[in-house]
Parts: sequence; structure tokens; C-alpha cells
Amino acid sequence: MSNQIILIDCPDEKGLVYNITKVVYDHELNIISNQEFVEIGSDYFFMRTVVENNGLGKKFKNKLQSVLPAAANVRLASIKKRPIVILATKEPHCLGDLLLKNAYGELPSDVRAVVSNHQNLQPLAKSFKIPFHHISCDDVSREDHEERLKKCIDQYSPDYLVLAKYMRIFTPGFVASYPNRIINIHHSFLPAFAGASPYRKAFERGVKIIGATSHFVTDDLDEGPIIAQNVIPINHTYTAEGMTQAGRDVEKNVLSNALKLVLEEKVFIYKNRTVLFE
Amino acid sequence: MSNQIILIDCPDEKGLVYNITKVVYDHELNIISNQEFVEIGSDYFFMRTVVENNGLGKKFKNKLQSVLPAAANVRLASIKKRPIVILATKEPHCLGDLLLKNAYGELPSDVRAVVSNHQNLQPLAKSFKIPFHHISCDDVSREDHEERLKKCIDQYSPDYLVLAKYMRIFTPGFVASYPNRIINIHHSFLPAFAGASPYRKAFERGVKIIGATSHFVTDDLDEGPIIAQNVIPINHTYTAEGMTQAGRDVEKNVLSNALKLVLEEKVFIYKNRTVLFE
Amino acid sequence: MSNQIILIDCPDEKGLVYNITKVVYDHELNIISNQEFVEIGSDYFFMRTVVENNGLGKKFKNKLQSVLPAAANVRLASIKKRPIVILATKEPHCLGDLLLKNAYGELPSDVRAVVSNHQNLQPLAKSFKIPFHHISCDDVSREDHEERLKKCIDQYSPDYLVLAKYMRIFTPGFVASYPNRIINIHHSFLPAFAGASPYRKAFERGVKIIGATSHFVTDDLDEGPIIAQNVIPINHTYTAEGMTQAGRDVEKNVLSNALKLVLEEKVFIYKNRTVLFE
Amino acid sequence: MSNQIILIDCPDEKGLVYNITKVVYDHELNIISNQEFVEIGSDYFFMRTVVENNGLGKKFKNKLQSVLPAAANVRLASIKKRPIVILATKEPHCLGDLLLKNAYGELPSDVRAVVSNHQNLQPLAKSFKIPFHHISCDDVSREDHEERLKKCIDQYSPDYLVLAKYMRIFTPGFVASYPNRIINIHHSFLPAFAGASPYRKAFERGVKIIGATSHFVTDDLDEGPIIAQNVIPINHTYTAEGMTQAGRDVEKNVLSNALKLVLEEKVFIYKNRTVLFE
Repeated sequence: MSNQIILIDCPDEKGLVYNITKVVYDHELNIISNQEFVEIGSDYFFMRTVVENNGLGKKFKNKLQSVLPAAANVRLASIKKRPIVILATKEPHCLGDLLLKNAYGELPSDVRAVVSNHQNLQPLAKSFKIPFHHISCDDVSREDHEERLKKCIDQYSPDYLVLAKYMRIFTPGFVASYPNRIINIHHSFLPAFAGASPYRKAFERGVKIIGATSHFVTDDLDEGPIIAQNVIPINHTYTAEGMTQAGRDVEKNVLSNALKLVLEEKVFIYKNRTVLFE
Repeated sequence: MSNQIILIDCPDEKGLVYNITKVVYDHELNIISNQEFVEIGSDYFFMRTVVENNGLGKKFKNKLQSVLPAAANVRLASIKKRPIVILATKEPHCLGDLLLKNAYGELPSDVRAVVSNHQNLQPLAKSFKIPFHHISCDDVSREDHEERLKKCIDQYSPDYLVLAKYMRIFTPGFVASYPNRIINIHHSFLPAFAGASPYRKAFERGVKIIGATSHFVTDDLDEGPIIAQNVIPINHTYTAEGMTQAGRDVEKNVLSNALKLVLEEKVFIYKNRTVLFE
Repeated sequence: MSNQIILIDCPDEKGLVYNITKVVYDHELNIISNQEFVEIGSDYFFMRTVVENNGLGKKFKNKLQSVLPAAANVRLASIKKRPIVILATKEPHCLGDLLLKNAYGELPSDVRAVVSNHQNLQPLAKSFKIPFHHISCDDVSREDHEERLKKCIDQYSPDYLVLAKYMRIFTPGFVASYPNRIINIHHSFLPAFAGASPYRKAFERGVKIIGATSHFVTDDLDEGPIIAQNVIPINHTYTAEGMTQAGRDVEKNVLSNALKLVLEEKVFIYKNRTVLFE
Repeated sequence: MSNQIILIDCPDEKGLVYNITKVVYDHELNIISNQEFVEIGSDYFFMRTVVENNGLGKKFKNKLQSVLPAAANVRLASIKKRPIVILATKEPHCLGDLLLKNAYGELPSDVRAVVSNHQNLQPLAKSFKIPFHHISCDDVSREDHEERLKKCIDQYSPDYLVLAKYMRIFTPGFVASYPNRIINIHHSFLPAFAGASPYRKAFERGVKIIGATSHFVTDDLDEGPIIAQNVIPINHTYTAEGMTQAGRDVEKNVLSNALKLVLEEKVFIYKNRTVLFE
């Protein structure tokens, strides 16, 4: 028997865990794991419960809603290969890592296509037998380019877009088409060095650590909810180019870790922050 | 109103969370935080629940026991300054850090005394106004030495003994007097380099990371349940002496982190391992 | 015989190492360690050489200057206890750690005094037998306050001022009195969260790592040359207060590591960055 | 103009740096970087100097030898794509990462072939257009298997063999055929958990960190000189299988970092340890 995941968030009140687990108990479901969190200050409640079953549906959900505050969000999910489209520009490391993990089952993903504004990554996508689309942004308005992108992407009905070092900024309109469904990797420990050329800026500031941040994309550049971050130590011998090389492994690890959390339904978004049930 | 902590562990079965939270709900307690874990393989259940209240007692505990398997361990606790005796030998860094944190409320501890088999740490204890006892191990049998130690320690009725670089090995008899109540810091990432001179061994092996491990003391040297570990990178320029210097900060941080977890009632011991609800 | 340290920086040119080591060789000095670095791009040369000797003086230095470019900076140093004054406000953790390390020889420092704008740290300084000065900033202009500070500090002729969580901003005039001689700890991984309340900002941004940065103080707040940085992982369960607690160990470790590097003459400042010969 | 690397190690004596840099200076070579290290205790000297030139040969080497102790090892090298053969068993993550980095120039390597005792990695090698050889160890003696391996490997004249999770142990005879030329990745922070099933052992010991170690292969299993190590934090929720998944990224990063250091001629082997000029 496989598992289902129950995801609930709502304003906190007494008896939530009891009421929820009573519904679970009444359905004779075995709890595999159960995590809750109440944010102090906002008094907001989050819960993720994994149960042994795969037949839970609308009726069960309604039952849960009936014992919860009206404002509660209830979601039933399961871990299965989710359709994904990857956008990249020229760098192969994040894309290559995702394609490897996708091919060998290290991520619950089904990468449907790779889209790039350049051509050089075509052989990489091809070697993993993933369709590749080159959608140039030369001689075309931002709006037209995004229109083509959208058309290309939407034929694959992806649950998530993954920006694997996609070096262009989207318009609010594009972002609004995929709310909380675009995952980016930025090559700095945000909020430090947002925007262009973070390694150049890191060199100039003389920092002793560099890092990478994966976050959901919102209208504000590099300001969306952070999912994962990691850093590596550096020193004065690193040029901006040296940081670029050294940062690749941390970039790709952070991105694939973030994507794994999202695909395993372990991420809540709340007030531009994330709650992660790892 | 202050908080109480409910700690439960027992073999897993359906309905545990429901049954427990029902008792909590029936007592109209507000849950501040709630963490559970079921170890796959052993099917063993752990739960730590913090509730807003400070009057829970035997009756509440009995009620919980009545809805749980007969083998369940139920414990009610609260975070308050716990009596502690620190044992040290000659090195001041772990002892000094604990005394500082004790003095400034960074640990829920009440350090009652410092005991050492040497005299050099007396001024340090004195500067924090903590009684210091020198119990030499010269010209005395191991058993007699431990007898004196025990006598000295027990007048302070400590909940825990903290070995802050105490460089002697206890007999099983001594350990048995304080079951799961002796916390040690070992200057290696165990199980690597157990026993004497870990930095010397680390140098000879040519490792690129060194570390420290805090664990409960059992009869097997450096084999007790691990509470916390951390490491730092090193390289070929570190002699054993260099590692000794570099390792001090990680040793003291790991020890005080481990002690904090224990004093905050976040640690379960199970099969020579620990479950930590951080 | 003890050791002396030769510190040289100048524009790079062919033969520098040869010319320098020739002088060293002609003086029959044994080299204990020797580190060089040439910054690519700026073509600037740094060298730190430790030799077995303690009698090198003006003549040797002149000899070195004679084989080096006119713009070269040559400095002879040795590791010895350097006079230091520590400034703090209310928090004891960084101050306490420095006092412990100072007392037990873990730093080549001679802490001459502790100065604070509050009174609560007096007992801590006293327990280590270090003079404590309370210089309040209440009802006094910034200039007058700094004047009193300077007067108090200068009686101790410190080589360095260490700001151990000193929560006030200095005027350019004050900073200019101690050029490259004021070392601060800031409780964020700069340049993220410069200025006030970094943990509050970190909470609001929802970062997954927090950190600390030690840097030389310049006129631009939290913008001076970085000496050391480190981070720890956090998650959504950390409030700003929780980060404050968790961050203390990393703050004090980063500050004492930075100070150690400075006192061991391992730090060059160049273009608002540091070159560290660790 | 490209660069050449001068690698020297010998017993320490006065004037070594001077004598070496004199030769360099007399040849009018520009030093790009220069690193030395003298191991205290053994009084052994290591030096790595990068100069702007690519025509240094036997004559220059002889000149260097003439100013050095008779026992000195002098080596001239340059960074260029080195022929490599990768051995793997069934797991794709380390192999895939190396093939990606090889294909995109992130390593100065020329992977000539992949050899495995299983067949499942054939498509991965093929997708990167690298010859794949399946050399089964079924129904064949260890000696015969290694004979076939050697024959297959030697047709590619590799400078190094990389064991990318190759799960078999070599005989001393095989190891002797490639002295200091076999690089392994072991999935633990050695010396902890040498040998089989390190994650299983890590689970049973209840450690709070796991790691990976890359080392040169010698006759003693997992006892060769360590090149690189790294760790990640874990907790009680990780089963041995969970550690296996979580450890993959650290394994592949450590292996490729170690290989990079070796290929960039930054590694000296000395007394079963390594000196790394990073």
C-alpha cells in the first residue's frame, strides 16, 4: 500500500491536532509520520501527516474541513513523479544534475522538456532523451518572448518550472501564470548580492563565504520565499571566476534539495517565508 | 503561565496521537508545540508535547497511561534550572564556557560545584563563585578515588554530571550510580579516534576534518548514545597541537549544545541512540 | 630562540621572492614558514615569512627595502601579548569568551580594560580582574561621549579596540583615531542585514542560514574589511529571539578567530578586503 | 603563454626557497603563485611554484636538482587534460557527475572509458559517448577478473583510475600496478566506518553527522592517504537508506574535488598523508 499526505494550515486554536487525528483515527488510518508547527506571534498552524493509504478523496477532505476553522487550507497529496519543465541559459551544471537525478529516480520528477534562450545545452538534454526547445530572445520583445515561452511550456502541463541558471528576469504577468510554481537558484546567500553578478560583488566586498539560494519566484527579483540555502568557505585567493567555479556544486545541490522538498510536499509558503517539514 | 512538557515513548500502534491529544484536549490544555517520531523498523513511537500549564500531576499522568500501551513511558517535565556538578581535569575552555552560560542564563542549569583531580581550575570556578573540590587521584586506588568523588558529588544532589574534559575513565560501578545522567565531551567525531589522544591519531591518519562528540557515558568507553557532534575543516599545516587549539571552540560548543538539549528535555535515549526533538 | 615575522606588500614584479629570500639567506635566517600571494588583476604582491630569530631590526628592514620597489611596505613583527581594550554594551557572551581566552593564553592578548555604556558587565570583568569603566551615553552628546571614551581608552595605549557587541555607531572622527585598529563583530553574514536588528530582518526574510561577521571598522557602517565569517543553519522554528540565542556561539567564535588572526600578524588589508595567511 | 608547475619535496635545510627562486629568476620566469610548507617534526619541505612558461624541460630540472639536496624530488608538470579510466559498479551519481564535469570542462580530465562489473551504467556512459566495458566478476577468480580489468584499462593508458563507487576490493598486485594512481570515494568520514556498509553502521552507532572521504588506494582497505573529506548533518529520522540518499551529493562532490586537486597537481603524498596546495 502506498502513502498519502495530508497538508493543513490555518489560524491556530485549541484542539486542532486532536480534531484532525480523530478524523484520521475514525478512518482507521495508520500514521507514518506527523509534524506540526505553530508560528509564535502569528499564531498560525501547519501540519503534515503521512498516512498509509491511497484512496483518500473528497469525502475525507470534507470531513477534515468540517472539524477545522473555515479559513483552513486542506490538501491531499501523494509523492509521485510530477511533470516539470526546466529553463536554462548556457550553464550545464544545474541542468545536468537535475537530468541525472531525474533519470535515476533520485527526484520524484518527470522532466518533460528543457527550454533555453541559447542552443548550447541541446546535446545535454538530448543525451538524456529530453525534448529541447530553443526560444531565442534576440530581436524580440520581452512580452513576445514570454508568450512563446508560455506556449512552449504549457504544452507539457508542468506542475513546476525550474530555473536552472536561467539568466533572465520575468515580467509580473509571466510569474502570475505560475503562482508559487517557479523555483529559481540564485548564486549567492540571499539577501546578500541579489541581482546580477553576485560573485563579482562578493569578490569586491571581500566576503569569506559564498553561497546559493533556491527560492520561489515572485515579482520582486530574488525576493521570493527561500526554500534552501547553503554556503562554502572561500578566501582571498578566489577571483570572481574562481568563485564561479567553486560555487557550481553548491548551486546544484541547493537547487536539487529545494526541488526535492517541493516535490515531496514538504513545503508550506506563508508570508514570503517557507515552513519545511524535513 | 509557564509550560509543561509531556514526554512519551512506547511501541507504536494506531491511534496514539489521537488518544494522547484527546487527553490533552479534555484537560483544555493549549498545545504550544508537538513533535512525534516513529522509528521505522523498530516501530517505536516517541512524542514530546509542550502545553501551557504548570499544574499537571499524577492524575493527568495516570489518565495518559490509561490510554497508552502498558509498556509506555510517560514523563511530565518542565524547563527549570537543574542542579549540575561539573567534573574537569586541567583544561579551562569547556568549563569556562559552561560557567559563563550558567551565570548568564544561557543554560537552564544551576551549577552546584566543580570537581577536579587537579588544582589549576580552582581560580576559574572561584571567579564564578562556584564551590571547587580538588579530589586528587594520586596515591589512591581507582575505587577509593571514585568513592570520594561520589561522596563529594552526592552532597549536591545533581540531576546531571557534566564531564568538561575530565580525562579519566570511570568504573562500571560509578557509571551505574548515575544512569543516563553523565554527559561527556570527546574530542573527535566518534566513532573515529575513540580513547586516548584523538588529535595525535587524527594527525597520523591525515584526516581533513576534526570534530567533537558529546554523548552519555556508558560502561563502554566513548560508546554511549551520541547527543551532538560537529566538525571543523583542517589541513596538512595542523600539527596535533594545532588541532588541539583549533578544536577547543568546537568542543565547548558541542558540549554546551548537548547539555542544553538534555536540560530542555528534548532527548530520548533508545537502543544506544538518541532521538532529539530540536 | 623565538620567531620574527616579516610582512611585505608591494606591486608585483619579477624576482620579488628571490630578492627577499636572498636577504633572508644572507642573514643566515632559518625560514619556519613562508606564504605569498599575488592578486591577479591588481598584480599586487603579499608575503609573510616567519624566521627563527628575534634580533632583526632597522638594518635588516633597510636591507629588505633596498631590494624592493619604492612603494613596498615592510613590517617586522613578532607574536607577543598585545595590549587591547574591549568595548561592550550589555551582552556577556563575546566579552566572556575573550576574557576566558585572554586569561588562559588562548589569544596573544593582554586585555587592559573593559569599557561599556552600561553597568551590568562589571562583575564579569571583575571576576577576571580586568578594570571596568562605565561611560554612560545618557544625557551627553555623541561627541562628548566619544571624547570621554577616547580619554579612558588611551590611558591603556591599546594596539586594538575590540567591539564585543558594542551597540553604538562611532563618528568618523573616532574611527580615524584608531585606523585599522578597531575590530567589530556584526551578527549577520555581511553584506546581508547590515545595521540594526539583523536577526529580526533575518526572520522576516525567512533565511535558512544565519551568521556572524568580524570586520575592521571604517566610516561606513558594517562596510569595513571582513576578517572572518561563519554561519549556522536555522529553520522556520526560529524566532528572532531564537536566532539571537543560537547565534551567540557563532558570534563569539568568529570574533575570537578574527582577533587571533590579527594578533598573530596574519592579516593584510588591501582595498577594503583582507588577505589572510592562515 | 600557458603555465608550468614546479613541484619539489625534500628534507628541509636553510636556503631552499632562495636557491629555488634563484634558478627561477635566472631563467627570467614570472612566478604566478608559490606555496611552501615545512612539516614541523619531520623537517620535510614541500614547494609548488607556478610560472608563466611552457618550455621548461630536462635542463631546467637538472639546474634545480643541482641546487637541492640529493634526495630531492623535482617534478615539472602542467595542467592539461589527463587520461582517466573510471571504474564503477551500479550507482550512477558519482559516475554521472564526473562525466558531466568531464564533458563540460570542469575537470582537466579526458575520461577514456568506463569499466563496470555490472551492465546498468552502460546507457549513462553511452549518453556521454564514453566507451563502456562490462567485465563481470561472476564465475571467475579474483585474479582472472583483475587480469581482464588490467588488460581493458591499460589499452587506454590512463594516468589515474577513479573508483566511482566501485564496490570491490583489489588485490595488492593490482594496486601495485597503479601506485598512487587509484583514487577512491568511501561513503564515510574515515577512519570511522571503514569497510562494508558504512551507512548501516552509522545508523546503528547513532551518529549525528555522516560524510565521505576520497583517498588514494593502498593495500590496506580504506587506509590510504586522504585527499578530501566532507560531512553533512543528519538526525534520528534518517534510516540507513535515508543516509544513502542524503549522502550521494556529498560523495560525488568530495570525489570530484579530490580528483580536481590531483589533476591540478596540487597534491603531495607523504607518509600516508597528503599535503594539499589549494
